[in-house]
Amino acid sequence: MKFRRSGRLVDMTYYLLNHPHALVPLTFFSERYQSAKSSISEDLAIIKQTFEQQGIGTLLTVPGAAGGVKYIPTVREEEAKETIRTLCDTIANPDRLLPGGYLYLTDILGNPGLMKRVGRLFASIFANREIDVVMTVATKGIPIAYAIANYLHVPVIIVRRDNKVTEGSMVSINYVSGSSKRIQTMTLAKRSLAEGSNVLIVDDFMKAGGTINGMINLLEEFQAKVAGIGVLVESESIDERLVDEYISLVKLSDVDIKDRCIRVKEGNYFDFTI
Amino acid sequence: MKFRRSGRLVDMTYYLLNHPHALVPLTFFSERYQSAKSSISEDLAIIKQTFEQQGIGTLLTVPGAAGGVKYIPTVREEEAKETIRTLCDTIANPDRLLPGGYLYLTDILGNPGLMKRVGRLFASIFANREIDVVMTVATKGIPIAYAIANYLHVPVIIVRRDNKVTEGSMVSINYVSGSSKRIQTMTLAKRSLAEGSNVLIVDDFMKAGGTINGMINLLEEFQAKVAGIGVLVESESIDERLVDEYISLVKLSDVDIKDRCIRVKEGNYFDFTI
Repeated sequence: MKFRRSGRLVDMTYYLLNHPHALVPLTFFSERYQSAKSSISEDLAIIKQTFEQQGIGTLLTVPGAAGGVKYIPTVREEEAKETIRTLCDTIANPDRLLPGGYLYLTDILGNPGLMKRVGRLFASIFANREIDVVMTVATKGIPIAYAIANYLHVPVIIVRRDNKVTEGSMVSINYVSGSSKRIQTMTLAKRSLAEGSNVLIVDDFMKAGGTINGMINLLEEFQAKVAGIGVLVESESIDERLVDEYISLVKLSDVDIKDRCIRVKEGNYFDFTI
Repeated sequence: MKFRRSGRLVDMTYYLLNHPHALVPLTFFSERYQSAKSSISEDLAIIKQTFEQQGIGTLLTVPGAAGGVKYIPTVREEEAKETIRTLCDTIANPDRLLPGGYLYLTDILGNPGLMKRVGRLFASIFANREIDVVMTVATKGIPIAYAIANYLHVPVIIVRRDNKVTEGSMVSINYVSGSSKRIQTMTLAKRSLAEGSNVLIVDDFMKAGGTINGMINLLEEFQAKVAGIGVLVESESIDERLVDEYISLVKLSDVDIKDRCIRVKEGNYFDFTI
């Protein structure tokens, strides 16, 4: 089927958005559209310019016989600021206060549009790291993990807190929850993670960091490496943090149950350069 | 900022893909690109034609003052066949057999690209139903629920099997697991589902349908309605099915542990017209 430039631009945009971080050879497009490589190169220049101008991301061109083009989703600082401001404003609503000082975040995590924006933020900041897989612990971290993995084009693995799971042989570790000091267990199916993988660890909420520290220990059992750590919300009022290098979008500075007041601010996201 | 047609086509494609099932007024685009409505209409005609030709979906035009354009993701029959064939071939691998006759599906559910394709299949077949929210039960149904919700542009709610959850007041029901006949509990946070909502129920695996039946009963507590039921894999060898109308992608007809053989075929997806 022969395509005009306008049709090619629409379909190439669709294809590239659906294959982030994947190297697409120019011959793929020239065969798909029965068009000369020179025309495809011009199309890609238009797409690259629009993506950069509109803050959608960028196209990397890899030269040579094994080369091609790669769409890298990125987020501009203004957009990151706006997403984080939206999160802060939403989280600061006192109706979120639950008995025990917990916060109701279910609606935020259940909003796919917002999760996409969160996923793009993390995918943008971790774009240059080598990441083979995104890991989280069930249940609340899962939407964040998938949102990031969608933009990094890598699989997701989910650590379980129970061992009533039917996934074949499992590796379990015990860890101490940083805030409650209780001993807990986490479990991962043996075949779900290849040895030596580079793993991005993510979660919805971090207090002292016991759960994330548990995931780091679990990775050691698989001879896997931590490629980065990302959390949606971190709690500031912690004496001793078990985890050093992490990226957070929102920092919970104070929850006052008596006055029904939640104080939040930007996380450390902007301390890292995109 | 002034846009040429080529740049508009790229950015409009991006915008529409990110806002499926949302009505976008033409004035939104003409202001965004400082372009006449007639030019925008021409752009949309090109996008619509390419989307339909490439099986990406369609654009619905809603006329009138409150009108606009709506991107509806759909899947063509050939593509649906191919996705389901990929699923069948992947699932039939005997290495998936686990002790107890269970199947290892974790890698399939952990593959965001494949989950996207699954999500598009369900979003396509349910495109004309009124759906306010997608519901599943933790943990394995979650990636499917988000993949569908992304294409339908609605929130996700997650039913829990435990009640160690901190989400405020909860509604619990007991249900009988269809295959094991054991009494189990499922729980949903009261504030997570509005009364009268139209709910699409999804899960990764259905045997007799006890879990899905439990979710249906739970919906009654919220005066909510079942808008549809979708499962990735159904098990065929069931005497009495507790659930009537559902859509499945894959049907597991036989698992022979002794001969290490898994027999699968297409689910009932194609019994329904897209």
